[in-house]
Amino acid sequence: MIREQFERPQHILSASQFGRPFLDYMYELINTIRKYDKSKDGLVYLQNLLGHRRAMLYFTQPSTRTFLSFQSACGILGIKAAEIRDPSTSSERKGESVEDSLRTFASYVDLIIMRSPVAGLCDRIARLLDETPRPVPIINAGSGPDEHPTQALLDIYTLQRSFKAADGVEGKTICMVGDLKRGRTVRSLSRLLTNYPGVRLLFASPPEYRIENDLRSFLLDQGVPFEETTNFRDAIAAADAIYMTRVQDEYDVAAESKKVDSSAFKLKFEHLASLKKDCSIMHPLPRRDELDPAIDKDPRANYWRQERNGMWTRVALITILLGVDHNIVLPTL
Amino acid sequence: MIREQFERPQHILSASQFGRPFLDYMYELINTIRKYDKSKDGLVYLQNLLGHRRAMLYFTQPSTRTFLSFQSACGILGIKAAEIRDPSTSSERKGESVEDSLRTFASYVDLIIMRSPVAGLCDRIARLLDETPRPVPIINAGSGPDEHPTQALLDIYTLQRSFKAADGVEGKTICMVGDLKRGRTVRSLSRLLTNYPGVRLLFASPPEYRIENDLRSFLLDQGVPFEETTNFRDAIAAADAIYMTRVQDEYDVAAESKKVDSSAFKLKFEHLASLKKDCSIMHPLPRRDELDPAIDKDPRANYWRQERNGMWTRVALITILLGVDHNIVLPTL
Amino acid sequence: MIREQFERPQHILSASQFGRPFLDYMYELINTIRKYDKSKDGLVYLQNLLGHRRAMLYFTQPSTRTFLSFQSACGILGIKAAEIRDPSTSSERKGESVEDSLRTFASYVDLIIMRSPVAGLCDRIARLLDETPRPVPIINAGSGPDEHPTQALLDIYTLQRSFKAADGVEGKTICMVGDLKRGRTVRSLSRLLTNYPGVRLLFASPPEYRIENDLRSFLLDQGVPFEETTNFRDAIAAADAIYMTRVQDEYDVAAESKKVDSSAFKLKFEHLASLKKDCSIMHPLPRRDELDPAIDKDPRANYWRQERNGMWTRVALITILLGVDHNIVLPTL
Repeated sequence: MIREQFERPQHILSASQFGRPFLDYMYELINTIRKYDKSKDGLVYLQNLLGHRRAMLYFTQPSTRTFLSFQSACGILGIKAAEIRDPSTSSERKGESVEDSLRTFASYVDLIIMRSPVAGLCDRIARLLDETPRPVPIINAGSGPDEHPTQALLDIYTLQRSFKAADGVEGKTICMVGDLKRGRTVRSLSRLLTNYPGVRLLFASPPEYRIENDLRSFLLDQGVPFEETTNFRDAIAAADAIYMTRVQDEYDVAAESKKVDSSAFKLKFEHLASLKKDCSIMHPLPRRDELDPAIDKDPRANYWRQERNGMWTRVALITILLGVDHNIVLPTL
Repeated sequence: MIREQFERPQHILSASQFGRPFLDYMYELINTIRKYDKSKDGLVYLQNLLGHRRAMLYFTQPSTRTFLSFQSACGILGIKAAEIRDPSTSSERKGESVEDSLRTFASYVDLIIMRSPVAGLCDRIARLLDETPRPVPIINAGSGPDEHPTQALLDIYTLQRSFKAADGVEGKTICMVGDLKRGRTVRSLSRLLTNYPGVRLLFASPPEYRIENDLRSFLLDQGVPFEETTNFRDAIAAADAIYMTRVQDEYDVAAESKKVDSSAFKLKFEHLASLKKDCSIMHPLPRRDELDPAIDKDPRANYWRQERNGMWTRVALITILLGVDHNIVLPTL
Repeated sequence: MIREQFERPQHILSASQFGRPFLDYMYELINTIRKYDKSKDGLVYLQNLLGHRRAMLYFTQPSTRTFLSFQSACGILGIKAAEIRDPSTSSERKGESVEDSLRTFASYVDLIIMRSPVAGLCDRIARLLDETPRPVPIINAGSGPDEHPTQALLDIYTLQRSFKAADGVEGKTICMVGDLKRGRTVRSLSRLLTNYPGVRLLFASPPEYRIENDLRSFLLDQGVPFEETTNFRDAIAAADAIYMTRVQDEYDVAAESKKVDSSAFKLKFEHLASLKKDCSIMHPLPRRDELDPAIDKDPRANYWRQERNGMWTRVALITILLGVDHNIVLPTL
């Protein structure tokens, strides 16, 4: 187990909290945790780690996938998870402030995992709770178009794992495809990738979906080589990993997505022949037609593993926040 | 414990999967499991059998009763059960295919229990998952007007138990009453009853609700004696077990149920005097007015026990699918 | 541990069930239980007490706060809690009676916790189940404008705890403020307070929200000194505890609350200087503007503790109903 050379997080609010020492520690921790998944004894051990703890899953922005991933992570650790998925049935109807609602939840549990369409709400609640006699950690499970740090962390883990036989993430070419303008995953992941020297980023999208200025400036500042292109075929052929994304039309103001021609940015079965032989194909899911289901059986398809990695990543993050990661002690092979 | 002389099921998709050896094994298994219910130690033993497992209850067709029965069965075995009850809050809203949604759920859990209005969906998903690196068993918890195998199995168990002091189900006369045309339970149970030599079936219903041709042909092929009648009073008087059902008007296309006179096919308190003294009165519940609540206290009323039998039947089926039925070892009395 | 000098309750249906011996026993029991909360071992001990039991949370009247409090209490004791929160998805849609629905739930669980807008439903169901072969205890978690006994019990506990260094609740002056006409908490708590000799009650409200005649008569009968006033400032200055309540406008028939001037009955930060130095400020929550959030950090603000007390009170009540309170044996300090 790597000695930690990072400040232990009190909350998980933003991908920008995390630097390379944390990412390396997390990678080893997840790999160790997964060894416990190989036997009933191992799984029972994990469940007893936090069997006396309770969590609140406060998901006022719908997301079945992320919800279930966190719920499963809680279950693996024995944590009892309560849930709020529809704020309209809650006390908020009786005129309660969101601060009071969340302080109430906090008074019943040891951890709050929250997904909300309101940007900045997690940070506000974390600060509020930190001032009470019984603060509890907050995990941001997605805040509108803003942040989704655990997605970025599971993506990094998946990349680390994809490249473990190839000297790691350093020096690799990562191609991101699709709606790069509104996809928060792309932004968070790109920022985290600046922790790995030599990484080159290729952004392949229709002109309307190019990355935003803030990310562009950040990458220039960091001196990370990147390229923006509309040439999908060349980009994917050069990539060590392809990160597909779907059009985020839930953020459309006036159905503007319908006017954008994304047809050239779909990964199809016939493209497989042009990819590198060890290329890792990723997607945060859910997918639409930008990623052909016929690809699922190709050994390079990594998105289903990526999804399951998400569950294990969340297990690891929870053990860190609740201070039991040091009990994860199975020898690293 | 009876030696198994059947192929162990990978999924539970249809009542027609099961033959007599399985039904006999299941009967003994359920009886043994219920002995664990007599003490805290026994219940704790059951919970530790599968305390490291997770299940998904995917119920996109509403059914509180069946849902709670399965949820309780999971709880008894220590299984953490996640749930989807309203697909409109799920990723399907973001344009995801049902195959992708279910593969996602499968990636988080060890068992999927699904109830869906879509006929054949369970089979399709079972086949899909069988081709992935991480297949999980599927239980069909009701698929539209199509199949509801666990209901049929709990009905068989209840009949076996009703007749345990009377040489078993063989040779008994079972009378089914009500909407025999659309009640999937009637169809599944009738088919399973062909495993018991000498069983005679009486179908009592208004002409509009007679059994369908497929069942009629099947029974003729199997050489099972049966009778279709509109004479409710004679039928119930001749029966060793009466299986009441309600009008399935949720499958009405144009309120056609309102035009059918079902008034002569309701079991009332005053009928009790004409029944055999050991007759077993059953109903899959929920009931409306076809079964008089005044009957509830009669010792022949078996429907509340039948409901609780359902929970234990599901416990048994899950232990079989997840391979821990051999750990159910309390001596059979 | 105090020897019990009360009849053990089979159900918790009304605050009026409970007399002083029960309240004293409950106080000690809760305090003992909370000692288990200080260590993982203690919490694991609590979870194993009822880890083999299952409960149903039947909440057809929305209440996130009470729901979560009970759900957490179940979790602390290891009880698996199923839930019904929206009766429209249940079998009631198929024409089932509420009696049949609840008997069904009872057949799967060991305890039913129910909140319903229907006055008297809990009592009716408790009587029904008592006549079945498998009765289970019922907890009334709020029945319309009628009863909310666990709220009254947690309020009493909070008062007992507030005054533990001041010779207990006897002889104290308790001021209740707000909508005293429709707040069921006020009624139940006032009745319970008649168990404490020398308690004086001050009811401060707009004229339209004065207490109802039934409570007034009861207090006169019991010889409890009380005063009804519109002088908020004098009342709070005289109080050892202030119990704030919000306007219960969910019971408005024709928006009549809008016509009542409640502005003089709000506790603001500037009032703090006029309160007794050990005054306990309480509120059942959720609050609106009748209780200034700026007060939260004052050491006399007890409402957040009161909320958490609710969870522990419910833990204690469940251990009593399910007969494991005698296993709560940590020495009282």
